[in-house]
Amino acid sequence: MVGLGIIGGSYARGLTKAGYTVKAIDTDPATIQYALENGIIAEGTTEADRKIIGEADLLIFALYPHIFKEWIAANQWFLKAGAILTDVTGVKGRLVGEIQDMLRDDCEYIAAHPMAGGEKLGIWYSDEKKFYDANYIVVPTEKNTENAIETCRQIGEILQFARISQLPPYEHDEMIGFVSQLTHCIAMTLMTCNDTENLEDFTGDSFRDLTRIARIDDVMWSELFLSNKDALLHQMKLFTMEFSKLERMLMEADKEGIRDMMRRSTARRALFEKEKPEEKPEA
Amino acid sequence: MVGLGIIGGSYARGLTKAGYTVKAIDTDPATIQYALENGIIAEGTTEADRKIIGEADLLIFALYPHIFKEWIAANQWFLKAGAILTDVTGVKGRLVGEIQDMLRDDCEYIAAHPMAGGEKLGIWYSDEKKFYDANYIVVPTEKNTENAIETCRQIGEILQFARISQLPPYEHDEMIGFVSQLTHCIAMTLMTCNDTENLEDFTGDSFRDLTRIARIDDVMWSELFLSNKDALLHQMKLFTMEFSKLERMLMEADKEGIRDMMRRSTARRALFEKEKPEEKPEA
Repeated sequence: MVGLGIIGGSYARGLTKAGYTVKAIDTDPATIQYALENGIIAEGTTEADRKIIGEADLLIFALYPHIFKEWIAANQWFLKAGAILTDVTGVKGRLVGEIQDMLRDDCEYIAAHPMAGGEKLGIWYSDEKKFYDANYIVVPTEKNTENAIETCRQIGEILQFARISQLPPYEHDEMIGFVSQLTHCIAMTLMTCNDTENLEDFTGDSFRDLTRIARIDDVMWSELFLSNKDALLHQMKLFTMEFSKLERMLMEADKEGIRDMMRRSTARRALFEKEKPEEKPEA
Repeated sequence: MVGLGIIGGSYARGLTKAGYTVKAIDTDPATIQYALENGIIAEGTTEADRKIIGEADLLIFALYPHIFKEWIAANQWFLKAGAILTDVTGVKGRLVGEIQDMLRDDCEYIAAHPMAGGEKLGIWYSDEKKFYDANYIVVPTEKNTENAIETCRQIGEILQFARISQLPPYEHDEMIGFVSQLTHCIAMTLMTCNDTENLEDFTGDSFRDLTRIARIDDVMWSELFLSNKDALLHQMKLFTMEFSKLERMLMEADKEGIRDMMRRSTARRALFEKEKPEEKPEA
């Protein structure tokens, strides 16, 4: 594991529990100490230790995107021949090609995206059950081998993700632009657009639900937004166009139009229930 | 209780449990039957029963806004002199004045708003604990007496709301336009703005959180939106302006601007936590 935050830490817990020998590199000494003391990893270091790097069959990178590239540039020559590299980065587009282009020919990078986050940061919040409810997406390019794709899928199975799927980088980023990045844009906008005092005294669950993700790691997310700029701007435009339609219907007191949009919203939301909508219980 | 849906039913459960004799009027026979069989009410009818109406010291209306007005017009002459009327309607503005103006002089209407909903409808989902976590707002006008305001507050106490407060109708509606109606507008827009197939296979908790309230009762909410049109349009405009700023920063790759907005969002969201943000546990 390179990077042992909440995601890297949760990977480490799951893999260790499944019987794998997990070694970790993280620049934070407290993180490594915590991971060792709690049996999350077998070995750990705060340096890019050449021995640990050279012994690994599989390296999983859970780092900020730009650090991931720097790390590969600085350390790839210490990798074992045949090593497989994968990651947890939330945007794939250019990054996948860049890493694949710069990487040694006798190692292989296969991209993956565990769709799980959480507003809490650090290994302290890692959990071996973190992914039981989440999606895992393998994001291969035509450069990837069947063997690496299969290895990458197996990680998803070992960590017991609820669903494992596969998408090309472009489609992955379009989808992420919508379901993840647009939602974060909306949450932070809602949180900052009205600074009336004491609003918190009156908020109910709706407002709390819509702004849970408004607590956002600015270093990571600004980078993710900018690395997926075009897809995200496209999704923001789709949202704005639909929002303006609603605004206009309201201005014109077009009750039937508003009701129609509400009915479409309700019908479509039913598709997104984790479980089937409950039946009305028998009286 | 006039109207015995999820909110009316939860009121009835709480008041019955506290020892009050609760009688209910609801047009749906299955609702009345369920409420009687489950001990939620002492007596119930599907008609505007003159005897039940004439005996009530306190009437609580949990109806669609326009039905509330019709009900008062049709039935107010059967009320007991001195009866206090209250409600659960989500928008107050014109409604409060209209009802107070049309109501007999020897009865008093004091508005209230329990800020609790839920996407499930009907008494089947009512719960005596429904309000333990919620806000209750008493919304008096200058026509209201101290006695009625105090009675209305007591209902909030009996039902064990987490917080009881008081706002004039105009301020109440401004606040509701933001924390409740704008959030519903956003959720339904997000739900309808992109109809890519199979998106549900890739959604995580963020998207689910932001669209939970996209399942929306079109009859009630279209009415609530339109009865608070000006306040809601104002809030939509504040949101759109802030959202456009973010769009522009993204277009210009203004990383520092985006990070600044993220930090403001994170700081402000902390105010809205139900509990204090957790400390990082000791290593």
